[in-house]
Amino acid sequence: MEFSLQEIADRLDLRILGDARTSITGIANVRSAGPGDLIFAEDPRQLEAALASKASAVIAGAFAKKHAASKPLLIAAQPRLGFARAAALLRSASSSKSEGVHATAAVHSTARIAKGVLIEERAVVREHAEIGEGTRIGAGAVIGAGVRIGRACNIYPNVTIYPGTQLGARVTVHAGAVLGADGFGFVRDEKTGRYEPFPQIGRLEIGDEVEIGANSTIDRGALDTTVIGRGTKIDNLVHIGHNVRIGEDVVIAAQTGVSGSSVIESGVIIGGQVGIADHVRIEAGAILGAQSGVPSKKVIRGAGIVFWGTPARPIKGYLKELAALARLARKGKD
Amino acid sequence: MEFSLQEIADRLDLRILGDARTSITGIANVRSAGPGDLIFAEDPRQLEAALASKASAVIAGAFAKKHAASKPLLIAAQPRLGFARAAALLRSASSSKSEGVHATAAVHSTARIAKGVLIEERAVVREHAEIGEGTRIGAGAVIGAGVRIGRACNIYPNVTIYPGTQLGARVTVHAGAVLGADGFGFVRDEKTGRYEPFPQIGRLEIGDEVEIGANSTIDRGALDTTVIGRGTKIDNLVHIGHNVRIGEDVVIAAQTGVSGSSVIESGVIIGGQVGIADHVRIEAGAILGAQSGVPSKKVIRGAGIVFWGTPARPIKGYLKELAALARLARKGKD
Amino acid sequence: MEFSLQEIADRLDLRILGDARTSITGIANVRSAGPGDLIFAEDPRQLEAALASKASAVIAGAFAKKHAASKPLLIAAQPRLGFARAAALLRSASSSKSEGVHATAAVHSTARIAKGVLIEERAVVREHAEIGEGTRIGAGAVIGAGVRIGRACNIYPNVTIYPGTQLGARVTVHAGAVLGADGFGFVRDEKTGRYEPFPQIGRLEIGDEVEIGANSTIDRGALDTTVIGRGTKIDNLVHIGHNVRIGEDVVIAAQTGVSGSSVIESGVIIGGQVGIADHVRIEAGAILGAQSGVPSKKVIRGAGIVFWGTPARPIKGYLKELAALARLARKGKD
Repeated sequence: MEFSLQEIADRLDLRILGDARTSITGIANVRSAGPGDLIFAEDPRQLEAALASKASAVIAGAFAKKHAASKPLLIAAQPRLGFARAAALLRSASSSKSEGVHATAAVHSTARIAKGVLIEERAVVREHAEIGEGTRIGAGAVIGAGVRIGRACNIYPNVTIYPGTQLGARVTVHAGAVLGADGFGFVRDEKTGRYEPFPQIGRLEIGDEVEIGANSTIDRGALDTTVIGRGTKIDNLVHIGHNVRIGEDVVIAAQTGVSGSSVIESGVIIGGQVGIADHVRIEAGAILGAQSGVPSKKVIRGAGIVFWGTPARPIKGYLKELAALARLARKGKD
Repeated sequence: MEFSLQEIADRLDLRILGDARTSITGIANVRSAGPGDLIFAEDPRQLEAALASKASAVIAGAFAKKHAASKPLLIAAQPRLGFARAAALLRSASSSKSEGVHATAAVHSTARIAKGVLIEERAVVREHAEIGEGTRIGAGAVIGAGVRIGRACNIYPNVTIYPGTQLGARVTVHAGAVLGADGFGFVRDEKTGRYEPFPQIGRLEIGDEVEIGANSTIDRGALDTTVIGRGTKIDNLVHIGHNVRIGEDVVIAAQTGVSGSSVIESGVIIGGQVGIADHVRIEAGAILGAQSGVPSKKVIRGAGIVFWGTPARPIKGYLKELAALARLARKGKD
Repeated sequence: MEFSLQEIADRLDLRILGDARTSITGIANVRSAGPGDLIFAEDPRQLEAALASKASAVIAGAFAKKHAASKPLLIAAQPRLGFARAAALLRSASSSKSEGVHATAAVHSTARIAKGVLIEERAVVREHAEIGEGTRIGAGAVIGAGVRIGRACNIYPNVTIYPGTQLGARVTVHAGAVLGADGFGFVRDEKTGRYEPFPQIGRLEIGDEVEIGANSTIDRGALDTTVIGRGTKIDNLVHIGHNVRIGEDVVIAAQTGVSGSSVIESGVIIGGQVGIADHVRIEAGAILGAQSGVPSKKVIRGAGIVFWGTPARPIKGYLKELAALARLARKGKD
């Protein structure tokens, strides 16, 4: 698929410097770019390298207007964002848009499959499940009874979605993820010391444009509902426990775990391998550094403030503690 | 499905205060309860809220006998446990008890399938595997050759069980879990610096009433057997290495890892993201706080004592260390 | 399958002490060994126990030549390595070497399947995928379009390999692993605060003799290629982010995570639950202790040196810090 710079500029509302008829067929980075590729530059140094590459055009910030450029440029207030959108434009134009139910898929007669849906080899769609328009259900995925999946979702192979789970529109779920499994809740019989299961009959609701990484697990609520808000991005091997409520536009890096009934407000950024215990509240816009840990029932407050360590504390103080400890150790035995 | 309070009280050996004919059709929490629902209260404040809800009846402790109650009550020594059991009673009565082998499942002719077994879409059961009475094998699950699974187990979709693994009765394995994979053992050739696989031909034995979370992995023994004792509960994304021996009624929260040949005795409680190195012994009843780490060959001893940090130490001393460090940092440069 | 000691000695280039006609049918450890079993001993104490066992023969180091042995011995410079190789010899001889495409597998007509390949129940092999000679594709595995898998690989059940991924020869991928999923990269629109996907169109290349554990995830590059070097061994539930480059003969224990664009050079050893942030460089031969953490853009240098803690530092200094902190806390309130 091929776009002229003019077409890309029109679609993304960008300004062109240079030949608007330049043909773009793909994206690349500065090292691998060839003819037909569009690349991006966020500062003058990157622009210099970009102009020296084999790419056909460059998306750059307003700073580039001052430069004499040997290639056509697209000027964007946020060049990385413009590049991402151009990539999405090219991808959507070139994707094959296949649809239909593969002969080896097992789709229950009561399931409601909208138009333009692709159900791949050996996928299972159970009774009363609903699959929205243009959604793909990957090979080997198992969609439980009564699950509702919105429009234009991408469910990759071997995903398992437990009964009753709801997904919004444009949700991406990578391979092997498990959505809506029973939460981890047991009651210990004080007489015998044995554990018996506490009921896990709540639901899981996932908002529009959520992305969930490979082999991540998000449990259903016990008696309440686990909620993942619109636009939240979850990396691979992340665990979200029962009754957790996550706001909008939250970013959670790989291998982080969130225990039962915790609340993560909108705009929070969480690094990798962070541990959040139960009944915690992470307030809007806080940032948790990688491997930090938040103990049970704690509140983390401070938009834009980075917290680090276990128990998590503001990074400024924590770095002072690390420095003080290093000095103490150097002094030797008191 | 519907039970009278009298029927529930009879089955669970509880005492009724109020109208024994009250009809119960479900369970809920205090916020979501409606007519027909049973809820529970563990203290007078919870009871007050419970009585103000729309629930039809409340399970409460002996303390409730003193209260003038506007709803019928069930009195239980352990109200949360009574509630969990009532939920199990209602669930078992309403479950559809389906059985049979789906046409798309691939069951080897030498496999032994007991009566009342449900084998779902596209499940694979290999040669000489044995599936006990009333057990469910979820869609896409792969049950290796010679695997033995006891009665009334629930194997969720897309689980993989390697050859020769044994599961007791009433075991639950959530979606995507992998049981009996090769342990992580290699021998480095000192001449070449390359690693070659050490044989991983031991087995994995899982006791009755064990629960294993979604996408968890439990490896087979190298030359010995990996053992998970009766009643142990394992959360999502947990890793258990080769030759590990875990006792009975152990609780392991999400994303914890146990390295090869470690022993975890009965009644131990392990928080999330805990790391236990190889050849460790966690003695009966010890409690490991979230994210703590136990170095190789260490012994952790002390029933009911909480250990925290890396290396894990009794929490009392560890909290003192954290406080001392904070004071030191506040004092600034010495 | 049965070998004489002479045959094993010839194949592995070992020296025999005792009856070369002794028949070996299996391997075991000292506790479980029976007649026909071969075991190994790395020191005189182990040799004593080995000679008292029911095993038929023992692989031991040169030290054993001085001992009067009641069983035939194989003398190896590296007895554990010799044992591992003998086990591999016995295993290869006894494996059933089945091949063929199961009737329930879905193999695209354009896929190229070499001879001796086994494709198990319900596996999916997409268009233009290439499967090398003698490779096994496990039940339920999904091999994406254009994937190239080398000779003698073992892909266990329910693995998902995204389109375009390349695997060398003799690669083992355990059940549930996900190879080549999109990396975790988003661009925040400064105007709306929402995240949009950065393109993830790079590839994943995995070298010969790599082993990947159950439910591990390795992402494709964003615009570059993620590379796993020859002979590298990766345990269960490990996460490797986009654009990461890992050298040869690296060992990575369970639940470790490596963030985007980091470099891990050859011969590095990484414990369990280690967190490596983005754009880190771990230089050749360094050792990272379990649960340690390496912050963004850091360089870890020192072959054979153990680093521990977060931020990771040489273990000698770190242990001094821990000791100093314990002393400080004991002194109480200054």
